[in-house]
Amino acid sequence: MTFQLDMNGFSLDKQDNNYDVVIIGGGPAGASAAIYTARSELRTLVIDKGLTAGALGVTSKISNYPGVPGPISGAKLVEIMREQAESFGAKFITDKVVGITIDGEQKEVIAGTGNFRAKVLILATGAMGRTSTVSGEEELLGRGVSYCATCDGAFFRDQDVAVVGNNDEALEEALFLTKYAKNIHLIVPTPELKARASLAEEVAENPKIQVHLATRLKEINGNGRVQNILIHPRKGEPETLPVTGAFVYLQGSQPITDYLMGQLDTTNEGCLVVDSEMQTSMPGVFAVGDLLCTHIKQAVVAASDGVLAAVAADKYVNGRKKAVVDWK
Amino acid sequence: MTFQLDMNGFSLDKQDNNYDVVIIGGGPAGASAAIYTARSELRTLVIDKGLTAGALGVTSKISNYPGVPGPISGAKLVEIMREQAESFGAKFITDKVVGITIDGEQKEVIAGTGNFRAKVLILATGAMGRTSTVSGEEELLGRGVSYCATCDGAFFRDQDVAVVGNNDEALEEALFLTKYAKNIHLIVPTPELKARASLAEEVAENPKIQVHLATRLKEINGNGRVQNILIHPRKGEPETLPVTGAFVYLQGSQPITDYLMGQLDTTNEGCLVVDSEMQTSMPGVFAVGDLLCTHIKQAVVAASDGVLAAVAADKYVNGRKKAVVDWK
Repeated sequence: MTFQLDMNGFSLDKQDNNYDVVIIGGGPAGASAAIYTARSELRTLVIDKGLTAGALGVTSKISNYPGVPGPISGAKLVEIMREQAESFGAKFITDKVVGITIDGEQKEVIAGTGNFRAKVLILATGAMGRTSTVSGEEELLGRGVSYCATCDGAFFRDQDVAVVGNNDEALEEALFLTKYAKNIHLIVPTPELKARASLAEEVAENPKIQVHLATRLKEINGNGRVQNILIHPRKGEPETLPVTGAFVYLQGSQPITDYLMGQLDTTNEGCLVVDSEMQTSMPGVFAVGDLLCTHIKQAVVAASDGVLAAVAADKYVNGRKKAVVDWK
Repeated sequence: MTFQLDMNGFSLDKQDNNYDVVIIGGGPAGASAAIYTARSELRTLVIDKGLTAGALGVTSKISNYPGVPGPISGAKLVEIMREQAESFGAKFITDKVVGITIDGEQKEVIAGTGNFRAKVLILATGAMGRTSTVSGEEELLGRGVSYCATCDGAFFRDQDVAVVGNNDEALEEALFLTKYAKNIHLIVPTPELKARASLAEEVAENPKIQVHLATRLKEINGNGRVQNILIHPRKGEPETLPVTGAFVYLQGSQPITDYLMGQLDTTNEGCLVVDSEMQTSMPGVFAVGDLLCTHIKQAVVAASDGVLAAVAADKYVNGRKKAVVDWK
């Protein structure tokens, strides 16, 4: 790792802003990538908004992450991964990325505290992006409010729960919950479901799911834990439903890509498109985890993505990969 | 989970051989699948040859499995995963599978101690399959002999090591080792490399790698740890090379698929072909881990495969997936 004089007159006192790899996002995907790039002796910086910012950070109890008997909080699991990466030499900073420059061989990341340069970027900013908008949602997050039934569903055995949303994800999660919960109220803000027909049919036929169309979630209430929700049907009176869980899928969960400013190829849904080695449409820029909308939002899947990207990044930095995208 | 009377006259005392999911292979892929299928309340059986039979079982020290700070032995990591799966109700047995019947809706697994029936099979038999053939190889496995430089390379910093083999994998691993090791002897049994040209060039140009063509590995020697190897060039005298590590890639590492008897689609290399949900060419039969030759043999990638297959298997069992293969 030599400190080269920068051609663009970058001042000497900023030389320590140069890295081999900058990873944006320190959730399970980003932290796992950092474990591997740091272990591979690449100078690695992870820029993250904070331990509890991501989807995993707000997951209260995880028992099914392979190799880590739970229950463990999502924040704790991520913390372990970060410490592992740090033990191999990765550096973590808390900062917000506002933009990136990726068209040269040297990539640049513009963040609040300064600019950082790297040969490789690994984007791992996740897909939550949901700002709590319902009264009680933020306060009871992790205490009955959840954004992931696959993660938390088993804790609601034989209980009554609500799922809020009208898209594929909401319906899939409602169906998943039928395995555990006694009754599921599906609260749909629109007059019709916006999910694919086969899913909608399945939901309609399932005796455990009660669909409330054209109904808004107004409040989530509880003293330390969710005890009920207040819903408001467009035609009708407000109603209080006693539930112990509220799974919220409003606004879907959008990949967080604002800082990319359209520089990379995405699907119509705004998910990043990558090849089998997690490389985006720009050589040297990789994307992992929920940015890809892989549809199964499990920490171990994100971690695996991170590892695949790290191994590919290592080859790239060492000139062991041709600098063109090889779509497979 | 009701015990139905079997149509084919299967005797009543064998009814407990019926499962929702039978997983063949209990390494990281199979055990992770079992964590998720059991958690999803599917009756799950894992049939495994034994804790130390697989590729991970012989890996001595793992420090980079995200979420599990090491060093931990591969066998211990797998054991933790198994206990997790068992805590959710999965059953593990030690047995060898000799055949499967998969063309009906009910699949059948023929093993040494009996036959097992399931709605879904998850194949996770891995890819090691290498029988130790070199003197000292078995005895010093995990004590300097390794089948995975990506896993163990960092433990050989500034040391002299040998890589044995002539294929892409052997050359990739030799190049990976240049990051840590001082000198790498590449022992090639054939007069020429059988790897792709770009890799062969890279190896030839790397000053840390010394290629020994048409040379056989005869012995791996050491007292408790590898101390040297004996090689035999076709034209020339036997020679002893002082090395502390021997990475063996002879016979490549073949996916273990003998018990499938050609019933499923594979690539030319014998790797199983699956769709994005890990389903093979036969509905209800999934394959995960090193069977797919995903090229990066890391436990977390295998674990992620297992989770993806388990989620798909859950949908399949609950009739939530059409029973045709949807190649993506």
